[in-house]
Amino acid sequence: MSGEAAFIGALRALATHPAARGLVDDAAVIEIGGEALVLTHDMMVEGVHFLPGQDPEDVAWKLVARNLSDLAAKGAQPIGVLLGFMLGEDDRRFVEGLGQVLGEYGVPLLGGDTSSGGPPRAHGLTAVGRASHKPVPSRAGARPGDTLWLTGAPGAAMLGFEALRDGSGADSAAYRRPRPRLAEGQALAPLASAMMDVSDGLLLDAWRLAGASEISLAIDSRAVPIAAPESRRLDALRWGDDYELLFTLPPGTEPPVSATHIGMVEPRGFAQLFLDGEPLVNSEGLGWQHGGP
Amino acid sequence: MSGEAAFIGALRALATHPAARGLVDDAAVIEIGGEALVLTHDMMVEGVHFLPGQDPEDVAWKLVARNLSDLAAKGAQPIGVLLGFMLGEDDRRFVEGLGQVLGEYGVPLLGGDTSSGGPPRAHGLTAVGRASHKPVPSRAGARPGDTLWLTGAPGAAMLGFEALRDGSGADSAAYRRPRPRLAEGQALAPLASAMMDVSDGLLLDAWRLAGASEISLAIDSRAVPIAAPESRRLDALRWGDDYELLFTLPPGTEPPVSATHIGMVEPRGFAQLFLDGEPLVNSEGLGWQHGGP
Repeated sequence: MSGEAAFIGALRALATHPAARGLVDDAAVIEIGGEALVLTHDMMVEGVHFLPGQDPEDVAWKLVARNLSDLAAKGAQPIGVLLGFMLGEDDRRFVEGLGQVLGEYGVPLLGGDTSSGGPPRAHGLTAVGRASHKPVPSRAGARPGDTLWLTGAPGAAMLGFEALRDGSGADSAAYRRPRPRLAEGQALAPLASAMMDVSDGLLLDAWRLAGASEISLAIDSRAVPIAAPESRRLDALRWGDDYELLFTLPPGTEPPVSATHIGMVEPRGFAQLFLDGEPLVNSEGLGWQHGGP
Repeated sequence: MSGEAAFIGALRALATHPAARGLVDDAAVIEIGGEALVLTHDMMVEGVHFLPGQDPEDVAWKLVARNLSDLAAKGAQPIGVLLGFMLGEDDRRFVEGLGQVLGEYGVPLLGGDTSSGGPPRAHGLTAVGRASHKPVPSRAGARPGDTLWLTGAPGAAMLGFEALRDGSGADSAAYRRPRPRLAEGQALAPLASAMMDVSDGLLLDAWRLAGASEISLAIDSRAVPIAAPESRRLDALRWGDDYELLFTLPPGTEPPVSATHIGMVEPRGFAQLFLDGEPLVNSEGLGWQHGGP
């Protein structure tokens, strides 16, 4: 067995509890004491999710923001985070960045673990939140006739990454310090038929939403606002790290937040994703595959 | 800044929520919907917490068992776990070991993340549980006059580690497959004035309990049952990985589980730990310090 897909397939047999949502959602949802608790865990590995030598303040920010974005996709209010941290050279700056992002979103550090080891260093973060609305949105609720929407404009993180990589001096904040759409997620939770965050690229994540909902999504690429030159449009649709929200609404419902209508939900057809009418028959090349080569 | 102690000191400023218990407890405790939820996160890093080449089945078992032991120390019933996993060569065996330990304790996998990267590989696990009794035991409740108790006999994991390291063929299960004291923790939670699990060595963990409770502990070393030859008694008291429960009981209370009376709680004196009447004035050499030299 090799690769993430095979491994996750094997794990799925252990994830039989309904709270696990078959491991096809952004987060687990536990019902406890009449409340719905939302739990997510994301890792960041040196050389995979961040550049060796990247400012630890930014690594801390992104580690927290990635996880809060998963809570946003569930419409959850953050309760706190647990940190798994590998000690290194410039840990004071990591703590400073951690304090900045936790302060920005009013989220306390609840606990965790530290270890020596590496390079590469690997950090993990678990975020815990309280659902603001039940049922908690999932990726699986989109129905034919629903409309497909996206907050923000993909491409900014791509340009930010390239600026950082190339040392061009252009603004890289969108890549280094993404802003999870917590307020938008909470406003959308009572309305959205399906919702997820776009962490691995719009097309790949749309593919996943379509798979979970067992429908087809038809995206009009020209409707998507992008934060990159027009010549980079297709790149922007495939690049991750923007942490926008992708969601569907029942017919006739308008979103209560700033968002763009980018497509439609259709009955499951020949392909689960259509881009400008062209069927995309597999997910290769649509975005960032974690386990990847 | 270097080392775990300095880093945790800096983190403590971010852990202001009461649920974090000042980062001096085994787990965080969140009150939600009238229930108390217990959360813990522990990492295992190749070359630090497990031997390169060690059977991934055993790594998976221990990763889960370490975290369930933290739940045991809170008297919590496990609800589920989230896994942060770095993909490698023999992941099928990891999944098999994960299935064994989750099956043994009836705990579902709820979610998590996978990544490429390494070696060294670093895995993290978050365990979530529901407190069986409130208030939830902490390390901070021991009072002068209480009695000090220990489940089981330390030293078995030490001998198991040495057998595995040396390839002697002797039994190494205590090191490879520790058994969290979940039932004992739940039986003790209504009675114990303070409780923790012994993950880093009896003396070091007793030092920590004394620090959190602001008392002194007096341990009678000969009263401690050890699972090692008498000549290794002091080693056994310093070795971690046994995952027994260390707890205090109010005067006159007998434990409802199998355990040994190994000492007394005294008012904070000259040192926070006394071993056979000798004061131990700092924690150097008392056990396993994660961040290492």
